[in-house]
Formats: sequence, C-alpha cells, structure tokens
Amino acid sequence: MAERRIDPRLEVTETRQGRRPGDTYIRRVRPYDELFQRSDEGELIATERTVLDRPGWTRALRKIRTILIGRPISTEREEHERLTKLKALAIFSSDNISSSAYATEEMMRILIVAGVGAISLTMPLTIVICAVLAIVATSYWQTIRAYPNGASSYLVSSDNLGSTAGLVAGAALLIDYTLTVAVSVSAAVAAITSVIPELFPERVLIAVAIVALLMLGNLRGVRESGTIFMAPTYLYIVLILGMVGIGLARLATGTLPEYTPPAEWLTRDGGPQALTIFLILRAFSSGAFATLFLGISFMAATMGIVPDPSEEQTVLSQIARLLVGDGFFFILIQLATVLVLALAANTAFADFPRLSSFMARDDFMPRQFAFRGERLAFTTGIVALSSLAAVLLVGFGASVTALIPLYTLGVFLAFTLSQSSMVVRWWRRREHGWARGLAINGLGAVTTGVIALIVIESKFLAGAWMVVLAIPLLVLLMLGIRGHYRAVDQALQREHAHPRAGTKPIVIVPIARLDEPAHQALLFANSVSPEAIAVHVTNDADGAEAFRAAWPEWSGGAELVVIESPYRALIGPLLAYLDVLQRHDPSRPVLVVLSEFVPRHWWENLLHNQTALRLKLRLFTRPNTIVADVPYHIGRPTL
Amino acid sequence: MAERRIDPRLEVTETRQGRRPGDTYIRRVRPYDELFQRSDEGELIATERTVLDRPGWTRALRKIRTILIGRPISTEREEHERLTKLKALAIFSSDNISSSAYATEEMMRILIVAGVGAISLTMPLTIVICAVLAIVATSYWQTIRAYPNGASSYLVSSDNLGSTAGLVAGAALLIDYTLTVAVSVSAAVAAITSVIPELFPERVLIAVAIVALLMLGNLRGVRESGTIFMAPTYLYIVLILGMVGIGLARLATGTLPEYTPPAEWLTRDGGPQALTIFLILRAFSSGAFATLFLGISFMAATMGIVPDPSEEQTVLSQIARLLVGDGFFFILIQLATVLVLALAANTAFADFPRLSSFMARDDFMPRQFAFRGERLAFTTGIVALSSLAAVLLVGFGASVTALIPLYTLGVFLAFTLSQSSMVVRWWRRREHGWARGLAINGLGAVTTGVIALIVIESKFLAGAWMVVLAIPLLVLLMLGIRGHYRAVDQALQREHAHPRAGTKPIVIVPIARLDEPAHQALLFANSVSPEAIAVHVTNDADGAEAFRAAWPEWSGGAELVVIESPYRALIGPLLAYLDVLQRHDPSRPVLVVLSEFVPRHWWENLLHNQTALRLKLRLFTRPNTIVADVPYHIGRPTL
Repeated sequence: MAERRIDPRLEVTETRQGRRPGDTYIRRVRPYDELFQRSDEGELIATERTVLDRPGWTRALRKIRTILIGRPISTEREEHERLTKLKALAIFSSDNISSSAYATEEMMRILIVAGVGAISLTMPLTIVICAVLAIVATSYWQTIRAYPNGASSYLVSSDNLGSTAGLVAGAALLIDYTLTVAVSVSAAVAAITSVIPELFPERVLIAVAIVALLMLGNLRGVRESGTIFMAPTYLYIVLILGMVGIGLARLATGTLPEYTPPAEWLTRDGGPQALTIFLILRAFSSGAFATLFLGISFMAATMGIVPDPSEEQTVLSQIARLLVGDGFFFILIQLATVLVLALAANTAFADFPRLSSFMARDDFMPRQFAFRGERLAFTTGIVALSSLAAVLLVGFGASVTALIPLYTLGVFLAFTLSQSSMVVRWWRRREHGWARGLAINGLGAVTTGVIALIVIESKFLAGAWMVVLAIPLLVLLMLGIRGHYRAVDQALQREHAHPRAGTKPIVIVPIARLDEPAHQALLFANSVSPEAIAVHVTNDADGAEAFRAAWPEWSGGAELVVIESPYRALIGPLLAYLDVLQRHDPSRPVLVVLSEFVPRHWWENLLHNQTALRLKLRLFTRPNTIVADVPYHIGRPTL
Repeated sequence: MAERRIDPRLEVTETRQGRRPGDTYIRRVRPYDELFQRSDEGELIATERTVLDRPGWTRALRKIRTILIGRPISTEREEHERLTKLKALAIFSSDNISSSAYATEEMMRILIVAGVGAISLTMPLTIVICAVLAIVATSYWQTIRAYPNGASSYLVSSDNLGSTAGLVAGAALLIDYTLTVAVSVSAAVAAITSVIPELFPERVLIAVAIVALLMLGNLRGVRESGTIFMAPTYLYIVLILGMVGIGLARLATGTLPEYTPPAEWLTRDGGPQALTIFLILRAFSSGAFATLFLGISFMAATMGIVPDPSEEQTVLSQIARLLVGDGFFFILIQLATVLVLALAANTAFADFPRLSSFMARDDFMPRQFAFRGERLAFTTGIVALSSLAAVLLVGFGASVTALIPLYTLGVFLAFTLSQSSMVVRWWRRREHGWARGLAINGLGAVTTGVIALIVIESKFLAGAWMVVLAIPLLVLLMLGIRGHYRAVDQALQREHAHPRAGTKPIVIVPIARLDEPAHQALLFANSVSPEAIAVHVTNDADGAEAFRAAWPEWSGGAELVVIESPYRALIGPLLAYLDVLQRHDPSRPVLVVLSEFVPRHWWENLLHNQTALRLKLRLFTRPNTIVADVPYHIGRPTL
C-alpha cells in the first residue's frame, strides 16, 4: 500500500492497493477550507459558499434570489428565529381581529336581501354571534390545554378519530388557509379602493400583487414578518376602539351624523325576499367571527349604514368617513385595516406550510412539502399557497362576499372535527373533570356542526359546493399519495444479496456525424470499456459509404456498425439493435453513450439535439439500460 | 484470437484478442432476419418492424399514428408516389381557380364603401384585373421556361439577385402559403355557412378542424391527396360555367330574377366615402386573381348583388341561390366550392414544406424542416404550416375580408422579386430574344411592384403592416440561423489529434438513501471503475450517523464521503465537491452516476426525482462532466 499527499492545500490523498496500476485505487478528499469545514475522515461540512458562490448560468438567478429572499440560514440558527411573545400575539391573533373589518358588512349584505327593514337585525345577530364565539373559544381552550404543543385539527382529529377524520380536518384546514389569504387580501383591497376609488378596476391585479409580496416576505423567513407586522395589529385595535368611542360620544351628545344611502343600493335584482329563519341563519353563518365587531356593528346599526353593492367602498370606511371625515384619521384607519388584513393573510402563510409539512412527513403530501428551504421556510408550501390563493382571487374577482361562504364552511368543518375529537378523548380517558370537559366540547361540536350544516344548506349553490366537493377529492388524493409512497418504499427497500461486482455493460455509442462531440463520446466510451461499439443509423446510403470510408482513420480503429434505415426512422432501428444485443445476453446492461452539444444560449437548443432528446426519453423507460450524456461545450475546454 | 458463434439464429460472434479475460473483446451482431436485413459485414438494413413493433409505452402512440397517417413508406418508393398529369393539373391549378369563389365578393366589399353606385364598377374592374393577370401569366411563363425544374421565387431570386433577395422572396412565400391556407379555409367555411347558417357562430372551430384534416391528409403523403381532390376541381369548373350559362340564357330571355339587398347591408358604420382613385385601386388589389371570375362578376353586376356585411353568406351563394333555387344544384355548387377551396389550401401544404426543406438545406431554417418523415412528407413543415394557419384563423376570426390584404401583399412581393430576377437574368445573359424577354418580364415586375406598393399604401393599417414587419424579421431570423449553424459546424469540425485512449473518469455516485435504485447505481459505478466514490449529502446529522453505520455492510466496502449541509441545499455542496476533485486534476472528466426511479405512471414523477432532475440540469452545463442515468424500473427485472 502506498499513500502520498498530492497537494497539502487541497488535502487530497491517494491510496493505491495492489501492485499493478489501476488494480485498486482509492482517493480521499479531506475538507477543503474554503468550501468545506473540517470534520471526521470522509466527512465534510458544507459552508455557505457551496450554495452562494456557484459559477455558471445559475449565478444571475442566485443574485436575484439573494436580493429577494436573503442569504441562506444555517439549520443551527433555527432556535434564534423564534418570535417574542409580543410579536407572536400580534401575528397569531391578527386573523380573528382583522375579520372585524368585514364581518359586519357581510352580515348586512345578507340581511338587506330580505329588505331594508331586516338591517335592524344587525345588532341582535351580532350579540348571538358573540355568544357562539364564546362557546367555541371555551371549547377550543380545552383543546389547547390537551395538546399544548399544537392543537391543529389535523393532529387532534388524527389522534382521536383516526387518520381519515384527520385527513378530512387537514383538507378542510388547507382549503381554509388558502381562503384566509384570499378573503383577507380581498378585504384589504376593498379598504384600499374605499380611499382611492380609481384603483377599483385594478382590484384583482392589486390583490395578486399583495399575495406575491406576502410570498416573498415568507420565503425570507419568519423573523422579518414578525417585526414588519407587529405594530399594525395594535394600531388597528386602538384606532377602531377610538373610532367607536367617538361615535358613542357623539351619540351621547346627540351629534351623530345622518346617513342616507344612495337609493339604488337599496334594491337588488331579485327584489326583496321574505325574511325567513334561513336568511337570519345565513347572515349568522357569514358573519360568524369577530372580536371588535360588536362595536362596528353597533355603529353601523345605529347610523343605519347600507353596504355598497359594488364592493367598492366598505362599511367600515363609510362609518369612519362619517365619524371622522376624509382626513388623516380616516386614512390611518384604512391603512391599519389594510395592514392587519395583510397580517391575517400572513398567518395562513405560517399555518399552511407547517400543516402541509406535517402531512408530508406522514406521506400524505409530496415529500418536498417537508423540506425546509435555504431560509428555513417551507418553500414548496409557501409557493403552493400563493398560487392557489392567486387562482381564487382571479376566479372570484377579489370579492369578499363571493369568497365568504367557502371560507366559513372550511373553518366550521375543521372546528367540528376537532371538538368531536375532544368529546371522544374525554369519553375514553375519563380523567378528572371529564364530564364538564365533555359537555363544553360537546356544545362546541354541536354548535359548529350545526353552523357548518347551515352554511352547506344555505350557500350550496353560492360556492359551498366547491368545498363540499374539494374535501373528499383532497382526502382521496392524499390517501393515494401515501399508498404510492408506501408501495414504492416497500419495493425499493427489498432485501438484496451482498453487492456483486457489477456485470460489465455492453457499451454503444450512436454517432450521427464525425465531429468533435462524437469524438468526445467515443473517448469516454473507450475509457470505460475496451469493447465499445459505435452505431451509425442513416437514411442516406451514399453518405453511409463515405462515413464508413472515413471511420478507421477518424476513430483510430473502433468497431462500427452501420444501420441503413429505409424508413428514415433513427430511433426505432437503434432500439431494435439494442434488443438484438440483449436478447443474446439479457442480464447484461446496455450503456448508451450520447454526445450532446451544449449551445451557448438556451434558445439555440431549438436548432439542435431534437433527436437526442427523444432518444433519451425512449431509453429512460427501457429496462436494463443506462444512458450516459457526454456534453460538448462549444468554446470550452474539452474532456 | 478465438472466435466462436454463440447463437446461429442471432448470428452473434465474439472475438477475443489477447489472453487475459477482458483484455480486448469484440462482438459483432450480424443481420438478424426479423429486425434487420442482411448486408455487408457490420452493416444492417432496418426493416419496417424496427419502426412498427417497438415494445413499451410508445406502442399505443404508434397504433394511433398508424391509424391516422398509415404505415411507414420506404425511401425507395419515393418514385412511385409521383402524381399523374391529370391529378397534378387539378391540384396545382386549384389555387387560381378557387380564388374565383371570393375574388368578386372582396372587390365588391371595397367598392360598396364608396357608396352603392360604385358597385357598377365591378365589371370594368374585373376586365382590368384580367388584363393584369394576362401580363403576369406571360411574364411567369418565361420564368418557368428559364427554370424548368422549379420556378420558386426563392430559387429564382437567390440565383439572380443574391441570397438576401432570395430570402425576402422566401419569407414572402412562406407567409403567403400560410395565408393561402387561412384565406381558402375561411372562404370554404363561408361557403358552408351560406348553406347552413346555424354553423356561423362556430366558423373558427370549423376552420381549425379543416386545417387539422388537411394536416393529417398531408402527413399521410401526397398520393392520397391527389386522388381525393382531383374530381372537385373539374366539377367546380363545370358547375360554375353551367351556372353562368343559365344566367346568360335567362338574361337573353329576359327572365333573370330580381335581387333586392336587405336595406341594412347598404349602409356601413363609417358611412359612404368619396370614390377616389385609391378606392378603385384597393378594390383592384384585393380582387386581383381569378380565372373564372369574369363570369361571376358579370352575373353579380348584372343582377345587382350586394355582399353580406357579416360574411355569413357569400356573393357566389347568393347568385347561385337566385339562379337555380335552394335545391340539389345549389348544394352541389357549394360543395364543389368547399372542396376546391380545400384543395387550394392543400397546395400550400405541398409548397410550404417543400420550400422550407430547400431553405433548411441551405441552413436558413432549422434542419428538421429538411427531414422526411415516415410517410416521405416533410413532417415539421406540415405541422408548422398548420399551426401558423390555425393561429391566423383564430386571430382573424376566419374572415376572408380581414385576411385578403395580407395575402395579396405577400403574393405580389414574391412575384415582383421573381420578375425582377428575370430582368437581371436577361440583361446579364443577352441570349437570343433577350430584349423581348426583358420587356415582358420588366412589364410584369413593374405591374406587380406597383400593385404591391398600392396594397401597402391602401391597406397598411388594415393588416399589411404585419407582412411589412414580418418579412424583414423573418429574413433576420433566417440569417441568424445560418450564422449559428455555420459557426457551430466550424467549431465542431475542428481538427483533432488521433484519438488517445480516453482518460479514466473520476466516478461519483450521489446516494440519498440505501435502497434498491441506489444499489443499482453503485453496481454500475463499480463495473466501470474500481475507484468509484459514493457521496451522501444530508441536512440531518443524526441520519448521517445511521447512514455511515449501515454503509460498509450495505455497500460491500465502497468508499463513502458524507457531506453535511447546514444550509439544507443538496445540489450546491455536491457541485462544490466536484469542483474540489477537479481542481486537483482538471483534465480528468467526472462521471456522475445518478439512480433514477422510473414509476409506473408518468404522473407519479411529480412525487419523485425532483432533486435528480434539477441536479441533471446543473450538471449538463458543467464542463468536463458526464452524467449516467441508471433507471430503476419498479416491478421490472433489475440490472
């Protein structure tokens, strides 16, 4: 055994075993300090430079990427990216808080269908909804206490009701996160067009641009989004409470401004309908989340606001404009509304990728959803969420009213499943206080379940059918994905005997013309096998003669088989030739060495390599066939 | 040297040179009588079965293809596919003959813009146009005599005015052939909707379907199209002459039916314009081809027909309906019109692919345009023509009136260039009768040139600008393509020394997990090199420890390098490792052996191989790097 150090800076050592050159030959590259850190023998730790400083055509892409989302973050830094409590509260409560910006309005839109008189039900309904919210919140509180590390409906339902129920909850949640983005961004755009009506025709474009911004922010990672978005939540709360306070003060002093809705807002195409219990319930299901919205509803009801049918101006902006005028305070309220809604959309950008990473780890979703990108974010989930939300925004014209039924149904389905799971859990465990817990969660489950049914019943044609259809389809797809991964893993992990020395492959080099790329391919083929066969398939008998004549000199005496193709097909005869070779010796693999010309610009590929590409596709699905690509770079050093 | 015949049926012989096994080893597969015919030593002739009987996933595609376009045709049979004279006349004259179906109408459409009175100019203009046609025909006749093997403007102009003029003519012709298809098919659809007005809303769809049928017919090859389309041309001539005969007879006997156009057809949005010389010339340039159309124009003028502004009903169908009623004869005329127009479109399906094959042979177009497909047709040209024509039909709503200005300009530009070429040719050669020839071609060149200028002037905004813009762009593109091919050929054909024995490559096997596909890849790597290195890039330090522990047993002792990637990137660190290896020994190529899992269904690829695909793309553009794909087929025999 002889060992020698070739270059101390590179720390490459060569070890030869046996006496004759080439008999056995081992090379070790030890850590190279620019690109890799030192570790154990045969173990390297990649530095940031292996990602950032790649030469070649990806350099420009990398620069754009670094500008847009920043430099890569090491896995070790994951801990340091945690949020402070103040930030976390601002981020994770923004979803609820922001829904007050549209809850009153959506409830009133449904009531007005039953005639202007029904609008007087705004305030009583708001109180009913707040009572339901109290039930749901108490019930949810118990769930969080039982699952302190994450009370996602997917986990809770999987744990107590089995994996199919978990999948239903998971599918409902994924749909819901997507709708959170779509609804919040639509409401944010409505808040913008309330201030600048000229932007109304471009509302879908603005909505998609906001989603793109959120996507980039989230691809950068969680810390920045905390810092950027913390202030608006608190600002929004203070401003809305302040506005309601002003309203109450003016009401007390009898100076509340009068509101007269444009006459055309009061009539709808369908004309006034009879006010039935279902209309009230529809209103109920569409306006069913809020915290601040008691105040907004009270002001809207007291002042007699009517929602704008075109959705150009929000109810909240009408109240604000009447109470505080068109000035700075109004614009500040609208700005805070936009930001808190963007923040609500942003929570879904945390929730969707996290849930899909859980589901991917359980093999229910493609595995790339579980892979953390360079900035520790789940890149695939973020991009998938952005794309789906953009599709919804375009499809529904960025209309909150159109999206709300889908959103509500998803939310209440997921709630119903997690509350039911808790009921099952209490019943099974019979821990201290189980009867009280079961009662609370039972009430929660029944309440949310009834609301879900009401939404399906009353909003089926208005869009709820999409959710009703999408959930089982998603569940089937997820089961299919897991089935596929399991079957493949089983097949791939099969026991095998100790590796034999691999059978020497039959080496074939298809050569179309005698040029440099072909020469490179032949050199490589000769380097891995002394019995490589060059194959020339041609539809030109005269050309074949010239080819054969030039061959011995050009190739240095390699074996050549010429196949004439009277049907002008190039691929079929070559594959048939491989068949003949392997029919004789089926266990021996075939190695097909293809020369490929790499042009300087991608569009030049349209002028080259068409046949090579088709051949590769065919060879890829052929059993016992290995394809080696020998690229020829024009104007670059050759092999 | 030892030779032995392994299997007489396969006629495979093995020749060993040298004593130690594996030293040198030559195998020859002689003709195998099912797939290949016998020929010289080392020369095979592929049978039809090598194309038709391929196993695997392409079998279904092949069956559909055989049903649609037929079995492959051998190159030898090319002679037998020539047309008879009667068929050739029918096919190649259909372009002129069929234009009579819309020439009168398009002329009248322009005249009516100047007011109803201007329609009386229909007949005088027709006579002027026929005179111009006589000049052009005489001039063209001289061209054909000078170039008996093909008087394409591209060849004639290249020959006499230089390759740039040839390219301008070629570009104009390619555009024109495309417009021939679009205009003829649009006119055919108008003839159909004249009979069945219910189909009018679907006219674009019908037009695209006709193009698709023509494409399939032409992919089948030329003989069928001759047989299918011969009869209609003669039928059309007889029927139109018969119809005009009936009209003349009824005119003589004073029984010509009266025509009253719907009042709304007589007013246009723009209102009547002043009748200027340009309007007459516009009429002239839009109706400038015909043979039979004197008769149609005469009947239209005598009967006072007015064209239908919506293009639902053609002028020809109005004349026919008035003269012969709604019955069998009318439907027969319309049917013959449709078929002769389809035949005219079909001539472009012969001309476009042939011209583009010439230009591809001269390196002005991508080389695949010069390749004859299985049925001896120029597949790429046919598909390109169909796609371009379909785009035009959709873009212009299958309207003859909208397409005519573009069409006319292309025709007259090409004519002007070929006539001018003939003038230069006469002048240079001064052969017997050159002065007379020069005068005739000069008159032709001036006439067609003036018409081209008139079309540009009068129809610039109506669409002629597209042709004016497209021709120089196409010429630049074609020059760019030739420049590219020449530069590449020069670079690839560089002199090189006699082939050395190729340098042994460094062999690297990236392994993500210890499964069967990885095992196959390692076996192959070991078979081509005794010093293959397995590389495991991981973002999971614990997993790396387990991997390293399992490795010696699993791999049978192959060398392993583990690269920890704290930034979770997989591709960057692997490429950096290759850089380190090659920095030490830059002339030695790297062979990267990738295991790829081939799923049973294509959509399963969405769940696998994402990283392998990205890695391949990066390696493809890396200098001195060869990629070998070792596919693992689930449920199929392994290597």
